[in-house]
Formats: sequence, C-alpha cells, structure tokens
Amino acid sequence: MSSCSSCSSCTLCASADQKLTNFISGLNVETSHHRVETQKTKCGFGLQGVCCRLCANGPCRITPKAPRGICGADAHTIVARNFLRAVASGSGCYIHVIETTALNLKKLGESRGELKGLNALNHLCEIFEIEESDNHKKAIKVADLILSDLYKPKYENMKLVKKLAYEPRYELWEKLNILPGGAKSEVFDGVVKTSTNLNSDPVNMLMHSLQLGISTGLYGLTLTNLVNDVILGEPEITAAKVGLNVIDENYINIMITGHQHSVISHLQDKLITDEAKALAKGLGANGFRLVGCTCVGQDLQLRGVHYQEVFSGHAGNNFTSEAVLATGAIDLVVSEFNCTLPGIEPIADEYKVKMICLDDVAKKANADFIEYSFEERENITDKVIKAAMDSYSNRRGKVEISIPKEHGNETTITGVSETSLKKFLGGSWKPLVDLIVSGKIKGIAGVVGCSNLTAMGHDVFTVELTKELIKKDILVLSAGCSSGGLENVGLMSPEAAELAGDNLKEVCKSLGIPPVLNFGPCLAIGRLEIVATELARFIGVDIPQLPLVLSAPQWLEEQALADGAFGLALGLPLHLALPPFITGSDVVNKVLTEDLKDITGGHLVLDNDVQSTAKTLEDLIIARREGLGINK
Amino acid sequence: MSSCSSCSSCTLCASADQKLTNFISGLNVETSHHRVETQKTKCGFGLQGVCCRLCANGPCRITPKAPRGICGADAHTIVARNFLRAVASGSGCYIHVIETTALNLKKLGESRGELKGLNALNHLCEIFEIEESDNHKKAIKVADLILSDLYKPKYENMKLVKKLAYEPRYELWEKLNILPGGAKSEVFDGVVKTSTNLNSDPVNMLMHSLQLGISTGLYGLTLTNLVNDVILGEPEITAAKVGLNVIDENYINIMITGHQHSVISHLQDKLITDEAKALAKGLGANGFRLVGCTCVGQDLQLRGVHYQEVFSGHAGNNFTSEAVLATGAIDLVVSEFNCTLPGIEPIADEYKVKMICLDDVAKKANADFIEYSFEERENITDKVIKAAMDSYSNRRGKVEISIPKEHGNETTITGVSETSLKKFLGGSWKPLVDLIVSGKIKGIAGVVGCSNLTAMGHDVFTVELTKELIKKDILVLSAGCSSGGLENVGLMSPEAAELAGDNLKEVCKSLGIPPVLNFGPCLAIGRLEIVATELARFIGVDIPQLPLVLSAPQWLEEQALADGAFGLALGLPLHLALPPFITGSDVVNKVLTEDLKDITGGHLVLDNDVQSTAKTLEDLIIARREGLGINK
Repeated sequence: MSSCSSCSSCTLCASADQKLTNFISGLNVETSHHRVETQKTKCGFGLQGVCCRLCANGPCRITPKAPRGICGADAHTIVARNFLRAVASGSGCYIHVIETTALNLKKLGESRGELKGLNALNHLCEIFEIEESDNHKKAIKVADLILSDLYKPKYENMKLVKKLAYEPRYELWEKLNILPGGAKSEVFDGVVKTSTNLNSDPVNMLMHSLQLGISTGLYGLTLTNLVNDVILGEPEITAAKVGLNVIDENYINIMITGHQHSVISHLQDKLITDEAKALAKGLGANGFRLVGCTCVGQDLQLRGVHYQEVFSGHAGNNFTSEAVLATGAIDLVVSEFNCTLPGIEPIADEYKVKMICLDDVAKKANADFIEYSFEERENITDKVIKAAMDSYSNRRGKVEISIPKEHGNETTITGVSETSLKKFLGGSWKPLVDLIVSGKIKGIAGVVGCSNLTAMGHDVFTVELTKELIKKDILVLSAGCSSGGLENVGLMSPEAAELAGDNLKEVCKSLGIPPVLNFGPCLAIGRLEIVATELARFIGVDIPQLPLVLSAPQWLEEQALADGAFGLALGLPLHLALPPFITGSDVVNKVLTEDLKDITGGHLVLDNDVQSTAKTLEDLIIARREGLGINK
Repeated sequence: MSSCSSCSSCTLCASADQKLTNFISGLNVETSHHRVETQKTKCGFGLQGVCCRLCANGPCRITPKAPRGICGADAHTIVARNFLRAVASGSGCYIHVIETTALNLKKLGESRGELKGLNALNHLCEIFEIEESDNHKKAIKVADLILSDLYKPKYENMKLVKKLAYEPRYELWEKLNILPGGAKSEVFDGVVKTSTNLNSDPVNMLMHSLQLGISTGLYGLTLTNLVNDVILGEPEITAAKVGLNVIDENYINIMITGHQHSVISHLQDKLITDEAKALAKGLGANGFRLVGCTCVGQDLQLRGVHYQEVFSGHAGNNFTSEAVLATGAIDLVVSEFNCTLPGIEPIADEYKVKMICLDDVAKKANADFIEYSFEERENITDKVIKAAMDSYSNRRGKVEISIPKEHGNETTITGVSETSLKKFLGGSWKPLVDLIVSGKIKGIAGVVGCSNLTAMGHDVFTVELTKELIKKDILVLSAGCSSGGLENVGLMSPEAAELAGDNLKEVCKSLGIPPVLNFGPCLAIGRLEIVATELARFIGVDIPQLPLVLSAPQWLEEQALADGAFGLALGLPLHLALPPFITGSDVVNKVLTEDLKDITGGHLVLDNDVQSTAKTLEDLIIARREGLGINK
C-alpha cells in the first residue's frame, strides 16, 4: 500500500495501474482506494455466507456450536438462499437493462427514427424468424417479441430461448428442467424462494440460479448487445485513446455512468449539433464531450467509430470514477444505472459537479432525477445540456483542474464483437480454429466481469492473471470493468504482444492485434458467449468441449454472479478469485465446484492465487484439447 | 428460561403458552425454542442494518471510524437498501399468493367447478364493475383483471387500485406519486434498486417501500381474502377448538402449513369422501384429518363452519409447528408456502413423518415435491392421500404418540371477517361506532402479524400487550400467527372479557364476544384494513383520523414488513417491538418514525416495553378521539 497525501495515517489499496494510484495519492478527497484500509476487518460469517438476517429472530450465525439458526435453517440453506438471492438480484439488473433497451427500440421503430445498425436488425429478424420488409416495423416486432418473453409468467417458457441458444445446450436445459419462464418472473421467484421460511433445499436453489443464468445471458446480455447494435450502430475494430488523459478541459465534460446506452442515445447525437456547439462556445468552451466511465463508456468506446466527435474516450472503470471526477474537469455526471459508486457523491459535491440520474432504480442521494422516457427525449436532452452549461459556468475557475496527462494510452484496440472479429478473420471462424488446432493459440480465456479492490487490489488479479495466460499462449478476451483495467495498463495495445508466449506473439504480430481482445462492457460477455457458440457450431462440438475457459477474477457485483451462472449453464469452467460467500456450506461448494461437471459440464474454480489459477485454467484448456484430439 | 429434559445444559425461551413450554421441555428433539439460547449472541451491525454484503469488496460494516463502505455507501444508503429489499421480498411472497389464488379462481371458473362464496363473487364484481350474469364467467373476469394488473410493467399503474382504495387515500397516493405499477414489477424494481451501486437515496427507497405496501395490501392481502371467499366459502362467526389437543390420533393426520388455501381446496374436499374414508378405515383409522398450523390453518379455521368434518382445528402458529410434529400423531406434512420452519425437517425425520411440498418456491430440503396445478388436482390429491396412508402404515406403532390433552381450549371464537362482523352488528357499523363514540370502546388496536421468539419470548409481547390494551378498553383485532398465540392462551374466548377494562367488559358480556377478535391468517390483516376503511367511510373521515392503531409486536418475516408498509401508507401508527434493522441510520429512522406523519399520516413506533407501548398506543387513540371531538 502506498501513502496518500491527504493525511498521514491512511493508505491506498494496490492498483495494477500505478499512474492511477499516483494520481489518487495526491488528492485531497477520500476514494474507495482509501476505504479498503478502513474496511479491512471482514466479518467471517458474512464471508462464508452463514449469516442470516431474514427475520426478527436474527441475525443468526452458524458456528460449530450453533449449527442451525433459530428457525432451524442450517448452513446449506442459508448459504444457498443468500447466493440465489444475489443471483436473482443481479439477473434483475440485467433484465431491467434489456427491458429498457427493447422499449427504446420499439419506440424508435414507432417514431420511425434512425436505426443505425440495419445489418444487426436483419440478423435479429432472421434469428426470430420475422418476415417483414419495413425496417421500422421489423424493429417493433423484434422489441415486442423480447418484451413479451420478459413478462411471461414463471410457468410459461420464454419463446426466444430456443431461437437464441445453441441446440445441444437447449436440449440439455430442457432435460434438466431449467428452461426459464418469463425473465422477470424468474427473478421474482428467486427472491420469494429465498424469503423467510420458504425454500430450504440448496440443490433446488442452485438449479434456479442456473435458470436465472440462462435468462440473464440470453436476454440481459446477448439481446441487449444485439438490440443496441440496431439502435446505436455496430462495433468496428479501431484504435482508441483511453485513460484519464482522454479528458479535455477545454470542453464542457459530461461523465457518463451506467449500462443503458440507448438511454443517452439522443443526448449524444444532440451534443454535436451546431446548435449545441454554439451554446458551448457561448460559454468559452470548444463544445461538449462525453467522458466514458463504467460500462456505458465501454459501450460507447466499442461503437467509437460512430461517435468520434462526441466521445472523448474511456477514462476508466468503476473504481476509476472517483479519480475521473477529481481531475476537476468534469462538469456534469449523467448516470442511468450502476455502477455509479456512492463514493462519487461527496467528490461531486467537493468539485461542484452536478449529478443527474435518468432512471429511478439508480437514483443517487445528491443527484437531480429526470425520469427518462423516449417520448420526452428532446426535453430531457435540453435539460441535461442546460444543467451541464450551468454547472460549467458555476464551477470553472472555482475548482482546480488537474488531469494526469501521463495516464492512459492512444493505442488500445477496441470495437471487437462477434461480428467485427469474424469479419476481421475474413468472414469465417476457420483461421481462428486453425490457429487453435495448430497450437499457435493454445486456447481462449474470457477474463471478464468487474473490477474490485480486494482481490490483490484494483485490477491487480485481472492484470496479473491475464499476463500469465497470454504467456501460456492463451488468447484473452475481455468484457466488463476488467476491460477498463486491462486497456489502461496497455494490455489491449498491439505492443502487448511482446508479453505473450512465442506462439501467441507470432500470431498477434502477424495480424497486428493485441493478445487481449476488447469486447467492451460487461454486457458484451454475451458477445463472447456468441463467439463460443459459433466456434462450437463450426467445429461441431458442444460448448464444454471447447478449449475455452472463463474467469471473472475480480467479480464485484450481484450482476457478475448472474453472468457467472450463465457461464456455468453453458458448461464452461468459471474462475473467481474471491468465493461468492459460499464457503460456509460444503454442499453448495461441492455442487458448484464438482457435481456441476456432470450436470452442465461447467464448474466453479475458486482460487485466490494468480499462478495456480493460470495453471488450472491452462490444464483445463489442455484437457479439452486432448478431448478434441488436437493436443500435440 | 425453563430447563429442557433433552440435555442438562440447554434452556428454552419463554412462551406466553406455558403448557406448550411444558410439552416442549419434555421432548427429546431440538426446537426453535431451544435455539434461541444457542443463537443469543447477536451481531450489532446486523441488528442496526449497517452491514452490507452486496459485493465482493465486502462485507463492509459502518462504524464511527468507518462511516462509509468501500464503495462509499453510508449508513443511510445501506440501511435503506436492506430495508427496501426486505419489503420487496416480503411483498413478493404475498403477490405470489394472490397470483396463485387468482389463477385457481380462473381455472375453477373455466372448469365450471363449485364456487362456494357467491356473495363474495358478486361483491367483487360490484367493486370491479363487471357486468356478467354467468357465475363462472364472473369468476374468470375477476381473476383476469387481477392477473392483468399483477403483470403490468412498473410504468403502468394497476387499474384495480382505484376501485379498491378509499378515495382520500387514493388521492393522497396519487399526489405523492406512489400509486403502484404492476405488483410483480414493483417487487422486481425494489430488488434491482437495492443491488450493488444502484440507488443510494434513502428517501426514494422508503417511498418505494410505501408503494410496495400499497400493492401488497390491496392485492396480496385484501384480494387474496376476497378471492378465497369465492373459492372456499365465506367466514362465519363460530366457536372452535384450538391447541395441540385438536389432534386426534385415531385419524390419519395431515399437518398443513402455508398461506395458499386454494391449493389444498381439492384435497380437503376429497379427504371426507366415502372413498377416502374407506381407505383410511382399511388401515384402521377413523378417517383423514387436516391439522391446522401456520396461516393456512388459520384460514381453514376462519372458514371452519364449511369444513367441520375434515378440519381437526388449529393446533398452533409457526413456532408451535415443531411441537405439533413432536406429538407423534402427525403422519404427513403438506406444505404449500411459508411459514414452514426448516426446523421441522429433522423432527419429521425423527418421527418418520413424510413431507410433501406443493409449490417450488417453498421446497423443503427433505420433502417430496409435487408441483401443484389445477389441471392435475385429482392426481395430486391421490398422491397426497397415498403418501399419507403409506406414512401412517409405516410409522404408527413405531413412534411414540403423546398429545398434551391439556393444551388449548374449545371456546375460541373464530370466523370474524369484515362481512361476518358487520352482519353480527346487524348489518351496519353504527353499533360499533356508537360504542366508540360513547367511550365504551376507547378505540381499536390491530395486534397482528407473526410470532417471534425474541421479543420477550414466544408470543409473550403479543399476549402481554393485548392484555394491557383490553384493560384500557381498547378492542383488539388480530390476524396472523399472533392469532394463533392469542387463541391458544384463551384471549379469544368469551371468558377473556373478565380481563378487559370495565367498559369493554360490559360490551363483551352484553354481546357475548371476547375482547380480542380473531380474523385468522396474516392475509386477513387485509380484512382488518377493510374494516378501517369502512369505518372511516361511515364516519366520513380519512383513515388517520380514526381512533385505530396497529401493532405487529412480534413481527418476524419480510412479509410482515410489507404488511407494515401498507399500514403506514394507510396513515396508521404501526408499533413494532423489535426495530426492522434500521436503527443504524438516523435518516431512515426519522423518516419512518416522524416525517411520515406529515406525508401519509402514519408512523412507526419502536418500543420493546409492553407498558410504555400500551400507553403510547392509548395516547395515540385518545389524540384521535380528541381530533374527532369524541373524547370526554
């Protein structure tokens, strides 16, 4: 831990991004990086998942001398309940995102607005078997099918699952009786099931978690990406600027946080109109800029070719957001979902930065709330622009601006999607499969998910594990705040090829790509899973047979657990550096880390050591190569 | 605490029901009453609601030296999040119940089955403005309107709220912008809002809790009662047998637990057919009996006049269920929801009692699961009967049966509903209002909700508070596990009039009623709130002006908090003996205990002392009497 200048006694958590730590250590405000120290004493019961506070008899805690709560719930029931509730809540977050996104598509269709990704629209119509010639009507029909599925009752299976899922997986899920009913009802039932004195069967609750994983993965993740492609334009591979250095103080800067890109679609188009630019210039600024932060920033970056003027670049992930504000160069925060840390609130106050929230579910304590609705988008955009201007006028000159120009790089390769990657490969997965078969690429690891501060520090595990994997000739794909960390330290730049093993280095150099491919936001874990499905289909095997592993080393949020449940349902090994509060039950542990291998083919790998994790993931890849008869 | 015979070191928690404690103390199995002692060390952070374990950086705990979690969430955010998530989950439970109930009504209508409560059906059609002459079509239309509301999105208000709510309340809720959207979406949003790094605004979250209270109260509570009245027959006031003594070992005994009476409707009719009786007699039993436990037992008791043959009576509430099993005279447990304690599982094993669960959300670890569906009701009933017979044959003669014949009484007055009470009063609320105006009845207290073991012991606070209130001439209405406790100790028998103050005693004696009226299950808190609404309408005032208070002294479950939120939205004072994990935030505390008075008229009263609670509730009643100009 390094020393912070704001007081003599506090210390900062480690970060993979030393330049960020240097910057934070010079600040006079407290950040999450400081609070790791003050919150370092952890509750053992909470860590193990054996604390229950569902009822007024509690909290109860399981110990060897008190093996049951007052009601009689044992460690297995309590751990499984806590886990399922977290998965259900996380699923709820993603399902909220696809609901908003599908509604925006529907209304865009109804208002005959601009659909920026017609290829993506046609692709969806093909999957959904929609026959329609009018593009706006296509959009409406796509949206209606999605919305109708989301609102089905628990006892009615969603119709699009069969159209979206890989056939062998669908058949297995059907056999296991885990095809999801309506996605919102699945969340609802997961919450009810885990309430006081309801379900006590750990296996039933873990199977429900898988069911939630399927609805989360296919709707919350996969479909959100595909629908956003229609509304916002498809990703194209390109180089981009990342880090705190993307911020240009000569603009009126709006930091965006959230996951619902379509909610700010109108705003981002409007900010670069002549009218808006004139307003900015009237205040002495060059114009307006969106500064990327969290996943909505990653999504903007992913589609960056379409938004070069308005988007200054991605500054950093969730635990970089406090530093972004503390540059002093942000004038407004526009937040439409998580991961908007409560920690930015006092910093926004300190730096006189106004905050606006556009979605009631993510209302921040000190923010103004303007409820987003498609119909009111003109008014809302006007209000946001006015707030940004007012804040700019009010604060500039009164707060110190200090942007660490050395932070970040301009060579990060972004815009990787299932479509742009395939296009890059010449329209077929064959070149990639050939490289895998030849051993030039030993396998693929999805290193995905959040950033946290406790698995060795900010992005430390993610970055170190990624380095180990590429050294072993394993190609890494990333999506989520993990991308934010990996790109800021340069691992998504072509130069990072030098850090890879000889085989992978050769591949990267010949193709001019980095050894870590940037799929963008956590939502794009869904894209990565499309890649897995397409590779399996191309080779003619089921997903668990692929030399493909997942790690969400620094998972943070409930959403990550819902993502992870999808990985497990797909039959993939999933590594987590920190256990998801399940170690208090050997039953839950065994089901997830062992028994699941015989159920879905996937399993959980819990390991907090970088070296042994890399070894385990490599071994899993080699075993799968052997299974395919391609390990030489 | 009294000593238990099963080992020398353990102690039992106190109970208002000394005969129950005597029985439990002689058992060789462990019950919840034993585990109060082993779980007596409580976590202060959990009690105050300032522990957060939403993410992998946690658990974080708020202390003076660590006023924020790593993400920056302060005590107010963390407490409000925990509270809203509990209310949302509790609401989810009740909304699940009304969904199942409405579905059963719909299918009963479609199959042209027997509708036992045609008055209730016509009443619902009147409220819903349904014009239809065919009773079965009426049932379908009623059910469809309810189901359609439950599945509305968050952004679309439910239509029946206006038809069900008292006008002045509806107008206030509209003004406060807390009219609920689709009830399932309200739960869903409550869960999303409280996930990692989403909402941080305590007031926003508390207002959402009120919104959930409204949907819970009007749909989960009120409508479940009214729909059950159609399916199962309306309550009629009658005297009934209660306590462990209701169990007759000469029958094949099925203990029922849950909240979804309509799910066992087919079973209870079938058990007394000649065919079923012949089957039982073939095994040497007199027949089949349902033994009431938890709220579904209360609901059977409430409608007891229609089920005298099949229903042996209500044995006891949630924390009596272990004792019911330990009589050895139960052959099968049929559970369709909570409050089915996990603690009954090892006791069921010990006494070789088979367990069957009919609803996946409430699957118990060691139970067989038979998914209930209306279409399959014949098969399901056959399976349940077969399981009961098999279990009876397998266990009788091998396990000791010991029913404490001294436990309970035969004089409990049951069957009180908004309809039967008004009928009893001669078809008008005037006699009751006159008694209140004259001061013979000082006011009304709803002493409702769960039973817990930690507010002075099992039912101790509930019983002691009730005694104090009736002494003060306050008429007590009860619904929930509280009823189970109050009836077993005789407070719902006419003889209890002797414990009332002189005025109330006189009223009770002249009418032949007890001073504590038994509305049955917790669902019937909705009936009690209909009484409040009808009294307010009769007098021509709004609900907060009534000399009426609520107490859920021994609230236990998340459901109770959702109930409570309805009480607060109605503008009623609501007492809880144990704070709902909110004391760690002065903001949340102040909003609920003070500010709310100026928002809805209701407020929370937190008090763990019986005497001062009774005094506060009396003072609140007197202040309201003064407001109405009737305090002399």
